[in-house]
Amino acid sequence: MSAEIEEILKRYGNYPNVAGIIIVDAFAIPIKTTMEYTLTVHYAALANILLMKGSKMTQNLDASNELTALRLRTLNHEVMIVPEENFFIIVVQKPGQ
Amino acid sequence: MSAEIEEILKRYGNYPNVAGIIIVDAFAIPIKTTMEYTLTVHYAALANILLMKGSKMTQNLDASNELTALRLRTLNHEVMIVPEENFFIIVVQKPGQ
Repeated sequence: MSAEIEEILKRYGNYPNVAGIIIVDAFAIPIKTTMEYTLTVHYAALANILLMKGSKMTQNLDASNELTALRLRTLNHEVMIVPEENFFIIVVQKPGQ
Repeated sequence: MSAEIEEILKRYGNYPNVAGIIIVDAFAIPIKTTMEYTLTVHYAALANILLMKGSKMTQNLDASNELTALRLRTLNHEVMIVPEENFFIIVVQKPGQ
């Protein structure tokens, strides 16, 4: 899995204005991060809740459907949450021009 | 408010691949929709929960920050949720090419 994770860090690291990337396992534990530890843990826990809610919402509306990504836009930054098979990815971006 | 709402319907109606627009008031009650009723109620309730979670998450991470939009990408469509002062907007889009 570690090669896959390095590949993900590289891929999302090329996105514009990336402030941080966090990889979180199925138990909501951050297994890789480019951000400060306290912030990482905070992001991981909250993104996990949001992802569960978003997945449930999607499947409630249509059981054959599946959530593929969730994006939060805030005044200060954007947060993208991408579920994968056994983990999920959080990408924090500074807003573009 | 009704002129504001007509303006919103017109604005988001011009977005590409729009399948539906729902305006939901502060009590999570849909006040305007271009979608079928049962689906509208379902979307409104679930989007309301997600929006509350997303707002709380944003403010937990930084009390001075504020959620400005939430976007779900699924296999079948995209859902954008935009909070306004006294209501929120749900825009359902078919995925682009």
